[in-house]
Amino acid sequence: MIIVLRPEAPPEAAERLLTRIADAGLKPLHMPGAERVVLGALGDERVLAELALDGDPDVESVKPILAPYKLVSRELQAHDTIVRVGGVPFGGSAFQVVAGPCAVETRDQLRATAEAVKAAGASALRAGAYKPRTSPYGFNGHGPAALDLLRETGDALGLPVITEVMDTADVERVAERADALQIGTRNMQNFSLLRAAGRAGRPVVLKRGMSAKIEELLLAAEYLMASGNDQVILCERGIRTFEPATRNTLDLNAIPYIKLKTHLPVIVDPSHGTGIRELVTPMSLAAAACGADGLLIEVHENPPAAWSDGAQSLYPEQFAALMESLRAVARAVGRTLP
Amino acid sequence: MIIVLRPEAPPEAAERLLTRIADAGLKPLHMPGAERVVLGALGDERVLAELALDGDPDVESVKPILAPYKLVSRELQAHDTIVRVGGVPFGGSAFQVVAGPCAVETRDQLRATAEAVKAAGASALRAGAYKPRTSPYGFNGHGPAALDLLRETGDALGLPVITEVMDTADVERVAERADALQIGTRNMQNFSLLRAAGRAGRPVVLKRGMSAKIEELLLAAEYLMASGNDQVILCERGIRTFEPATRNTLDLNAIPYIKLKTHLPVIVDPSHGTGIRELVTPMSLAAAACGADGLLIEVHENPPAAWSDGAQSLYPEQFAALMESLRAVARAVGRTLP
Amino acid sequence: MIIVLRPEAPPEAAERLLTRIADAGLKPLHMPGAERVVLGALGDERVLAELALDGDPDVESVKPILAPYKLVSRELQAHDTIVRVGGVPFGGSAFQVVAGPCAVETRDQLRATAEAVKAAGASALRAGAYKPRTSPYGFNGHGPAALDLLRETGDALGLPVITEVMDTADVERVAERADALQIGTRNMQNFSLLRAAGRAGRPVVLKRGMSAKIEELLLAAEYLMASGNDQVILCERGIRTFEPATRNTLDLNAIPYIKLKTHLPVIVDPSHGTGIRELVTPMSLAAAACGADGLLIEVHENPPAAWSDGAQSLYPEQFAALMESLRAVARAVGRTLP
Amino acid sequence: MIIVLRPEAPPEAAERLLTRIADAGLKPLHMPGAERVVLGALGDERVLAELALDGDPDVESVKPILAPYKLVSRELQAHDTIVRVGGVPFGGSAFQVVAGPCAVETRDQLRATAEAVKAAGASALRAGAYKPRTSPYGFNGHGPAALDLLRETGDALGLPVITEVMDTADVERVAERADALQIGTRNMQNFSLLRAAGRAGRPVVLKRGMSAKIEELLLAAEYLMASGNDQVILCERGIRTFEPATRNTLDLNAIPYIKLKTHLPVIVDPSHGTGIRELVTPMSLAAAACGADGLLIEVHENPPAAWSDGAQSLYPEQFAALMESLRAVARAVGRTLP
Repeated sequence: MIIVLRPEAPPEAAERLLTRIADAGLKPLHMPGAERVVLGALGDERVLAELALDGDPDVESVKPILAPYKLVSRELQAHDTIVRVGGVPFGGSAFQVVAGPCAVETRDQLRATAEAVKAAGASALRAGAYKPRTSPYGFNGHGPAALDLLRETGDALGLPVITEVMDTADVERVAERADALQIGTRNMQNFSLLRAAGRAGRPVVLKRGMSAKIEELLLAAEYLMASGNDQVILCERGIRTFEPATRNTLDLNAIPYIKLKTHLPVIVDPSHGTGIRELVTPMSLAAAACGADGLLIEVHENPPAAWSDGAQSLYPEQFAALMESLRAVARAVGRTLP
Repeated sequence: MIIVLRPEAPPEAAERLLTRIADAGLKPLHMPGAERVVLGALGDERVLAELALDGDPDVESVKPILAPYKLVSRELQAHDTIVRVGGVPFGGSAFQVVAGPCAVETRDQLRATAEAVKAAGASALRAGAYKPRTSPYGFNGHGPAALDLLRETGDALGLPVITEVMDTADVERVAERADALQIGTRNMQNFSLLRAAGRAGRPVVLKRGMSAKIEELLLAAEYLMASGNDQVILCERGIRTFEPATRNTLDLNAIPYIKLKTHLPVIVDPSHGTGIRELVTPMSLAAAACGADGLLIEVHENPPAAWSDGAQSLYPEQFAALMESLRAVARAVGRTLP
Repeated sequence: MIIVLRPEAPPEAAERLLTRIADAGLKPLHMPGAERVVLGALGDERVLAELALDGDPDVESVKPILAPYKLVSRELQAHDTIVRVGGVPFGGSAFQVVAGPCAVETRDQLRATAEAVKAAGASALRAGAYKPRTSPYGFNGHGPAALDLLRETGDALGLPVITEVMDTADVERVAERADALQIGTRNMQNFSLLRAAGRAGRPVVLKRGMSAKIEELLLAAEYLMASGNDQVILCERGIRTFEPATRNTLDLNAIPYIKLKTHLPVIVDPSHGTGIRELVTPMSLAAAACGADGLLIEVHENPPAAWSDGAQSLYPEQFAALMESLRAVARAVGRTLP
Repeated sequence: MIIVLRPEAPPEAAERLLTRIADAGLKPLHMPGAERVVLGALGDERVLAELALDGDPDVESVKPILAPYKLVSRELQAHDTIVRVGGVPFGGSAFQVVAGPCAVETRDQLRATAEAVKAAGASALRAGAYKPRTSPYGFNGHGPAALDLLRETGDALGLPVITEVMDTADVERVAERADALQIGTRNMQNFSLLRAAGRAGRPVVLKRGMSAKIEELLLAAEYLMASGNDQVILCERGIRTFEPATRNTLDLNAIPYIKLKTHLPVIVDPSHGTGIRELVTPMSLAAAACGADGLLIEVHENPPAAWSDGAQSLYPEQFAALMESLRAVARAVGRTLP
C-alpha cells in the first residue's frame, strides 16, 4: 500500500502511522517528498485492510501497489534512483561505461586492458575472478588472487571495480575487495545468493536471467531490496531465443519498458548480448539511444589470446572508437559521457 | 561461383564466359565494377566444377559463394544496393521514415494521418488495404477501394505508397496502385507469393517472419531476387519469444548482422516490434543508432478510435516529436533525414 | 451465442429462431442433439444482444461462446467430430497412421514405399507433390505429375491420399486428385489459402505453424470452418524453441490441451517434430499414449537416397516394427489400430 | 580418452596404465567389463597425446570422447546406470513414480498425501522443505522442521524421500534427512551447489533448467559426476517457449535423445511440465511410452487448499487412476510398475 499524507499533516503523523504499520507486523516505509509525505506498507493485504488507514485524519489517500514487485516499483518511488559505485553515479544524466576483460588472466593482461579502457573514458573496471562455466573442465577463474589483482589495479588507476560473485560463501570476501557485486545470468534466481548480496553493503549489478521475463528480473531485484539493499543496477544481457546467428538476442525493448516500471538504473551488456565483436559497437549505440544508463563491455588487450570470450571482446582501439561514437549518440539523447 | 576476370581481359571475354555458363544450364550474372569485371554463376555445383572456369586464360580467380543465399549475399555484391520507392532512395546515406495508419479506414482518416506524417517529415505513406487477421471475424481491410484511396492520397501529398499484399491473385492489382509491395510476417515463407511479387516490377518490403531465423529471411529475399526483382527492402519487426511484456521482441541485433551479410537495405518496424506506444520512440532511436536504413511506423490521427493496433499507434504530435529526436540521432551516426 | 431450446419446444421453433438470426445478419447454426436442440448465432455481439433471444418462450438459455474460436470450440459442440478421408475415419476409437515419403520422387520410389507402409498397416498415404523449400534452389516437387502418380498409387493399393497444397491457384487441382489437402506449417496463417481450402470440398489436414500458439492454430481452423468446411484434422508437428539438439520441439502438451478445447481430431507428425530417425518411434508411442488420433510419418524405401528429409525418414522395417509397438500402446489407452 | 585393453592384457596392465595416467596429472577411470577392460583418462588433450598410450603393448585402441561431457556419456559407459534411492532402483526395467505435495505444509497434510500415494503404488515421496519463489513475499518452505517431518513420514510408510536443496549451506543438513537431493530448475547451473551436492554422498535428482539445452543439462550432470557422485537421475520438467497455454512446454523429445547420449536414468515431471491438472495424466502416459524411467508428480490431499501449485496437483483418486493407466502403458513398452 502507498499511503499519501495530507499536505497539512503534522510531522509526527508519519511517525505515528509508521508505528501502527510496524505494530501490525507489516514492513513500514518512509518516503518524504518535496511536496507530500508518502508512506508504504508491505505485507499481508488483509492485515493492511484491517488497519483502515484511509480513515485516518492525516491520510489523504491509500492506494495498492499493483505490481507484484513493490520496493522496486515506480508506483512506490516515482523519481530515478542513483546508485553510486565507488563514487561513480549510475542512473542520472551521465552515461557510464564499465569495461574490461572477461576474466582476470594475469596482472599484466589486467593492467594493460584497464589502462586502455581508462584512457578511452571508461568509468569503471569489470573482470571475472570467479567464472561460471558450462563445463566442469573449463577455466573457472583465479578466485581470491584475482580479487586482489582487481583491487590493486582499480586503486592504481582510480577505477571502481565490479566483479561477479557466484557463491554465498564468497559474498563477504568479494564485498571486501570490489566496489560492486555482480550477480550473473545463471544466478538471477539463486535466491540464497540474492539474500546474501542484499545484506553485503555493496551495490549490486543484477543481470537478467537468459530466459527470465522482465517481471522476474524485477522480482529478483525486489529480493535484493527486501534484504535491505537499495543500491541495485539492472543489466540486460540478451535472452535465449530460436535465433542461432547471435549468441543471445539482446532485448533492447526491455530498456524503455524497465524504465517505465522501476526507478532503478539499467545498463546493457552488448558483448554477451550479441557474442560477435562486429555487433558490439552498433548495439552499444542503440542501447544509449533507447535510454540505457550505461554499458558493460568486454575489452581485451589481445582478444585472439583471451582465455574466454575472445570472439566478443573488443580490441582497445575499437573500444576507443566506440567511446567517440557513444559521445555523439549520448549527446543526441540528452545524456553525457563523463 | 564468383568469377573474377583478369584486369587485362578483353570486353568480349565476359560475354563469352556468360554464354558458356548459360549453355551449361546455369544462371549467368554480370557485375561490371570500377576496376574489375566480376561474373556469377548459380546452379548445380557439379556442373559448375565441370566448366573448369579457373583454367580460362581471362579468368583470374573462381570462388564459391559460401552463404546459402547467393544474389542477396555481400560475397557477390560488396556495395550497398539502393532501392527507390517512387523516387525515395532506401539504403544510401538518407534515413527514411515510412508512416501511416495500420489500416485504411476512411478517406478522411487516411488523409488526416497522411498530412500529419508528411508535415512531420515522413518519406512515404503506409496503410493496409488487405489486413491479415488471426481471427476470421476481424476487420480484414477494404481491399481494392482502399488501394484507390491510398493512390489518391499519395498522389495528392506527393508521398509514395507502400501496402501489403497477401494473395498471389492480388499482386497485379496492388502493383498497379502502390509504389512498393509489402510481404507480411505471416507470408515470409509463402513461396508462391514471393515468386509472384518477384515478377511484379515493383520494389518489395519483405518483413521477417515472426519466428524466422535471419538466414531464412535472406533466403526468402533470394526467392524475390531469383525471380528477377533486385529491389528488395528487408524489415525487422520483432520475433516471438517467451517474454510476454511486449507484443514481440524487436531483434535489433539483426540490423548490424544483416548489414554484414547482405547489400540490401533494412528497415525496422518498432510498432509491431514492441506493441506498446511508449516504446516506439526509444526503439526508433535505437534502430537509427545501430545502422538501420529507415523505419516503418504506425501513426493514427486518433489512436483510441483505431480499428486495429491502436495501442501501438503514435499520436501525430508524438510522431512529430519522434522525427525531431531522430534527426539528432541520425546525425550522430552520420545519416541524414531528408 | 449458444441458444439451448426448451425440451418441449416444437420443431418449428428452431426454424423460426434460425430465420430471426439470419434476418439480423448473423450466421445461424443448427445442432440438433439427442436430448435437446441447440442453435448457434455468430457475428456482432451487439446485434446478438438486441435480438433478446433469452426472452423467447421456446428458449431455455442463451450462453456466450467464450473462446475466440467458435465453430471449432467444444462449447458449441461437445462431442468429437469424426473426419473421413476417403472412407478412413479420424477422431473415433481407431488410431490412424498416415505414412509415406517426404516427396514423390519417382513412380517406383512411391510405389515401393506405399506398398511397404500398406503392408505394415498404414491407413493412408502421404507424399509431397509441391514442396515448400527454404531456398529457391532446392527441389520443390514434381507438381501435377506427382499428383497423378499419387492418385494412381493410392487407387492401386486402396490407400487414401493426403498431400500438401501451397498455392491458392493449385487448390482445385489438388482437390481433384487427393482425398485430403494438407496445409503446411509455413502456410497456417496464409488466410487466402485457408479460405480457398475451406471451399474445396475435401477434408483438410492443418499443420500447426512452427511458432503458432495453440489458440492461433484453432483460429486458423476456424477460418476453414467459417468457409464451410467442417472436415478439419489438426496436426502438431513441433514448434521452434531454443533447443538445437532436435529439429523442432514436438509439443505433445498440445494434444490433450487441444482435446479439451475442440471437437476436431488431432494427429502428430513426429518426423518433423524431432528430425531424428531414432526419435520417431518413441515419440509416436508417446503421441498415442497422450490421446492423439493418429500419426503422420515419413517413410522412405531407401532413406539415405531420399531427395529430402532422409535423416528423419524411417526404413520400411523400422516402420513395421513401430506399427507393432503402436498396437500395444494404443490398446493400453483404449484405442485400436485398424 | 577411452583406452581399450587387449583381451590378453594381464590384470596388472590396467593398474600400471592408470598410474601413468594419474602421474601425468589426468583423471584415471577404471571400467572393467565382461569381455574387455576399458580405461578412461580425462583432462588436457595435449598431455593425453604426449602419453602416447596407443603405443603401449597392452593397449588395443585409444579413442577420444567426442561429447563435451565425458563421465556422463554413453561413449564412456555403454550400459545403463541404475541409481538406488533408499533401495528403490531407477534406470532398470522398473518404472518408478515419485509423488507428493509441492510443499510440506503440515504434518497431517504430508501424512495424508503420503499415505494416498503409497496406497496407489508410488515408489518414493517428494515434497518441498525449501521452496524457490519468484517473489520474496511468497511462502518459501518450513526448512529444517519440514525435513524432520519428511524423514518421519518416509520412515513410517517405508517410502524413500526426495527433496530440493537450494543453498550450499543446507546440503549437509538435507543429505542427513533425505534419501536423495533434488537440484531445481533455477539452480541447474548453480555450479557451487552442484559441486557441493556432488560431494554429499546421496543420489541427486537434477532438473533441467527451464531454458537449458540438453547438452547443458548433461554438462551440469558432469559437474556432479566430476565431483565424485555417480548416482545422478536427470529430470525433464518443461522448457520455456512462446506458448502461453501451458505453464511450460514439456519436451518429451528430450527423453529418447538423452537415452541415446547418456547411461544415466531420466524421469519426467508432468506437473511443472504442463501446469494444468487435466494434462498431467496424458503426459505421464506419454512419458512412460517414450522411454522415461519414472515420474515426479505433485499430488495433494486437497488441491484447492494447497499453499502452492494447487492447479497442477492431482487429487488422490486421480493419482490412483493414473497409476492404473500407467501399469497398462508401461507393460506395453516392456516396463513394469513395482
